[in-house]
Amino acid sequence: MIRVVCKAKLISGVNVEEYLIMAREVISKTRKEKGCIMYTLHEDINDPTILTMIEEWMDEEALNQHNKSEHVLKIVPELRKLRESTEINMYKEVK
Amino acid sequence: MIRVVCKAKLISGVNVEEYLIMAREVISKTRKEKGCIMYTLHEDINDPTILTMIEEWMDEEALNQHNKSEHVLKIVPELRKLRESTEINMYKEVK
Repeated sequence: MIRVVCKAKLISGVNVEEYLIMAREVISKTRKEKGCIMYTLHEDINDPTILTMIEEWMDEEALNQHNKSEHVLKIVPELRKLRESTEINMYKEVK
Repeated sequence: MIRVVCKAKLISGVNVEEYLIMAREVISKTRKEKGCIMYTLHEDINDPTILTMIEEWMDEEALNQHNKSEHVLKIVPELRKLRESTEINMYKEVK
């Protein structure tokens, strides 16, 4: 199992609702993908311009398929235009 | 419900096993705390010196109690000595 944390910092002054409308489309399509266990968007309690996806995937193959999906290829570049920065880490559990 | 992502980057050359021994003590004690839903340590797939705790707490009160617990007050300062940086974000879900 793989977990992904994708932390986005929005550009100051960006319309957060515009971002969320697109993000919700990615979420609803991604949750239907094979091997997607969790795909949940979060807002930082102290900074509403930090929006972080916490993801759980069955395996690397499922994550690779997700990254090649139409909704990711089409919508994620639009999300990135509204971000100041994006930090992505892929993790495995430490026992 | 609150999620916390605590991303630590270890100092180059630090003995990771030394870090993990202390981290495992915090994990085992924290999982017995009231209101702790998940408390799982992760290693970055591309960089074994990035160690990230992904946490899930019932509410802010449970998290506050955790931060005042003996194991956190005693062991976390020792973990910090082995880190180059620590990045902590507290999150709520976006619906």
